[in-house]
Amino acid sequence: MITVDIKNKLVEVVGEQYVFTDQETLNDYGKDHTEDLVFPPSIVVKPASTQQVSAIMKLAFEHAIPVVPIGARTGLSGGILAVHKGIGLSLERLNQIIKIDEQNLQVITQPGVITEVLQNAVAEKGLFYPVDPSSKGSCFIGGNIAENSGGARAVKYGVTKDYVLNLEVVLPNGDIINTAANTLKNATGYNLTQLMVGSEGTLGIVTKIVLKLIPAVQHNVLLLVPFFKMEEAAVAVSAIFRAGIVPSALEFMERDAIDWTMKFTEVPDLNLRPEIEAHLLIEVDGNYPEILMNEAEKILTVVEQFQIDEVLFADTQDQKNALWKLRRNVAEAVKQNTVYKEEDTVVPRYELPKLLIGIKAIGEKNGFKSICYGHAGDGNLHVNIVKLDMTDELWQTKVPKGVKEIFELTKSLNGTISGEHGIGLVQKEFMSIVFSEIELHLMYQIKKIFDPKNIMNPGKIFPSDIN
Amino acid sequence: MITVDIKNKLVEVVGEQYVFTDQETLNDYGKDHTEDLVFPPSIVVKPASTQQVSAIMKLAFEHAIPVVPIGARTGLSGGILAVHKGIGLSLERLNQIIKIDEQNLQVITQPGVITEVLQNAVAEKGLFYPVDPSSKGSCFIGGNIAENSGGARAVKYGVTKDYVLNLEVVLPNGDIINTAANTLKNATGYNLTQLMVGSEGTLGIVTKIVLKLIPAVQHNVLLLVPFFKMEEAAVAVSAIFRAGIVPSALEFMERDAIDWTMKFTEVPDLNLRPEIEAHLLIEVDGNYPEILMNEAEKILTVVEQFQIDEVLFADTQDQKNALWKLRRNVAEAVKQNTVYKEEDTVVPRYELPKLLIGIKAIGEKNGFKSICYGHAGDGNLHVNIVKLDMTDELWQTKVPKGVKEIFELTKSLNGTISGEHGIGLVQKEFMSIVFSEIELHLMYQIKKIFDPKNIMNPGKIFPSDIN
Repeated sequence: MITVDIKNKLVEVVGEQYVFTDQETLNDYGKDHTEDLVFPPSIVVKPASTQQVSAIMKLAFEHAIPVVPIGARTGLSGGILAVHKGIGLSLERLNQIIKIDEQNLQVITQPGVITEVLQNAVAEKGLFYPVDPSSKGSCFIGGNIAENSGGARAVKYGVTKDYVLNLEVVLPNGDIINTAANTLKNATGYNLTQLMVGSEGTLGIVTKIVLKLIPAVQHNVLLLVPFFKMEEAAVAVSAIFRAGIVPSALEFMERDAIDWTMKFTEVPDLNLRPEIEAHLLIEVDGNYPEILMNEAEKILTVVEQFQIDEVLFADTQDQKNALWKLRRNVAEAVKQNTVYKEEDTVVPRYELPKLLIGIKAIGEKNGFKSICYGHAGDGNLHVNIVKLDMTDELWQTKVPKGVKEIFELTKSLNGTISGEHGIGLVQKEFMSIVFSEIELHLMYQIKKIFDPKNIMNPGKIFPSDIN
Repeated sequence: MITVDIKNKLVEVVGEQYVFTDQETLNDYGKDHTEDLVFPPSIVVKPASTQQVSAIMKLAFEHAIPVVPIGARTGLSGGILAVHKGIGLSLERLNQIIKIDEQNLQVITQPGVITEVLQNAVAEKGLFYPVDPSSKGSCFIGGNIAENSGGARAVKYGVTKDYVLNLEVVLPNGDIINTAANTLKNATGYNLTQLMVGSEGTLGIVTKIVLKLIPAVQHNVLLLVPFFKMEEAAVAVSAIFRAGIVPSALEFMERDAIDWTMKFTEVPDLNLRPEIEAHLLIEVDGNYPEILMNEAEKILTVVEQFQIDEVLFADTQDQKNALWKLRRNVAEAVKQNTVYKEEDTVVPRYELPKLLIGIKAIGEKNGFKSICYGHAGDGNLHVNIVKLDMTDELWQTKVPKGVKEIFELTKSLNGTISGEHGIGLVQKEFMSIVFSEIELHLMYQIKKIFDPKNIMNPGKIFPSDIN
């Protein structure tokens, strides 16, 4: 598919040292954090500028070669897997923060900047980019745009889409567009910005990003509440909001999630009583410590209506870091312990108990165990179905059936099948659970407008019978 | 265009008493709040349900009849003007709040509910829908979706788009879709919700809306700061944010805006010193009065760096209402006093002084006066170009030239031509100032996907050479 002629032209664009065809590199760029899937591209190129991205796309368009935009490869839905081979276009060299605009509270950045690096850079100027995916230490801001990433603080501060003001995008034919203006408000034409956010690299390649920032928030209080009953933890989530509190994080972890994390990763042991079924990790933030204590008190009043063990207040930054590490390491602990499959269910937050009970029942019926945790304040529950000692046959038959049932449950609760991980490769066959044929067809026609030759990350988002 | 046969079929759908062809009704439904423009539809129909809307669209699609969705007719860009005649489809009978969901902090509503009615209904349950267009007492929530309306509190709470979770939409061919799920997070397919928001009735008809709510906020502090220098008021706007404050409103009014409002509408006289050039109206809100006083103090510290007169604190609710009435009545005061043309410029907030100075210079060069006011915290400045004693000839030649120059200035400051009023009819010829041909073409192709026969509010948003 990639002829010598094409390769030479790619070398002309980016230089020989940024074109790779060795199997090791192809394999490296053919996997992300989605299970153990590997789909190497035919060739990897690493452009350094918008113009180079545009030149590559012009070439690919002319020859109808699939192109997969590749970020930090931390995705959880297989968005960067080159299922149709072609060019793996890594954005890692577009890694400059172009401007931190302290006057307008904005940052202009290239896509290949690590999210935490961006956060730290703006924090040095007293500014705050609150979107906080668990992978923030390694994921790229461009990938966050592609997947509309969320994370722990979305419950108060929103997700990636809520901070994107304007995007520079290279279209599949190499044309370069801007989606909007660098303004907080915009009622000028269709919202191309929000069409790009969450489109998982299927409409174009984002090469420049304008993000809104907010003033830094100076204090926070973190507490860990152990519940004797898992469902009560889920019920408490919406009760906290009904008490008028908007926490800056409200995370749920069922018992196994914590046990596994304590066992398999380096976090302190909490010496939990065996009867504890789940925890809520709750943070409130603001600029006035006395108010935060007041809000923490109100939260206590709410959770004390349920059967809980002693609440742990994190007094020091070290204690806070330890609790956050515990939360952030759950995925890693599961990964180290067993083959697994992760689903990213989301429902209106009060439906969380029904979702949780339903997932457990579906697991029991189909003979699989799941570890559930996630951003409960958003109604976003990560479901890790774990293989453990299931036979391969059961794993391959019962799990897809169970996943389908979980997604149907999600839909019946007015929810959907991905809150923040995207559809990518691994969820695409489930799209018809949540969208009608008309709705999917409408989306696919939009895809064709941007990408008439279907070269832009083909084989993603849409079910096979549409693609 | 509307044959007897078509009329009879419309009568079959909605009933005889909801089909109108008398000139008075046609005229009524052929104008909004945009200057003195009147473009009556050929017929007005008032469906009562999604199914009726769908039946009307099926009929219109079959016969390629233009349809204009009509809300409360408070728009400022001529979005509902039936420039191609056809069916005026009023949503006024879809006026039910379907469910206030206190558990999930959501409201499900039909589009024909007055925004303030919706706000009051959720407030009774201790909940808050913060989007606050100046016309909230008469506009429909469906119109807010169409225009992505903002208002005074957008600076802290965001605009309409930030609260829309899911929409039921009748497509131009009569198909009914849902754009998303009722969830706070969503990474499942393209964002059809945000494509609909702000699309000004050109892609489909919104028949059901799911909005996010937040817990009620209990207190606020309002202050009015008189500036001796207009530009300094504009500079102070971004200085307030840089001090770490996010006000819940930050409004700018130049001197004439206040004088005209005091003169022509019923608001108390502020006995201003003649040297005052502009005011900022600043609100902070929250649940802790002592914190609000602290924040008000910080704001004082900022504004006292500029040349200001005595700051007015609104102590009572009556005083607050009076100040807000002053702000909200500016548009009315201009309208009562002269022929005018309103522009809805928006720039990154720190560019506001440059915008303001530029607008005044453009006015001077072209011989027109403007009254400027608006949501300065968002960089959103409403520019009312006033005719007063200009000759018709000068009005018709100099003003369009000046408007073009103002929009070019806006673009050069990384801004755009509408912050919250939309493009509609009156700004569409200026779209090529802020979008390239490729960008406009992309938008128009999206339009064609939804609306292949160009029957859905035709003649809006896109410049004539595209439409």
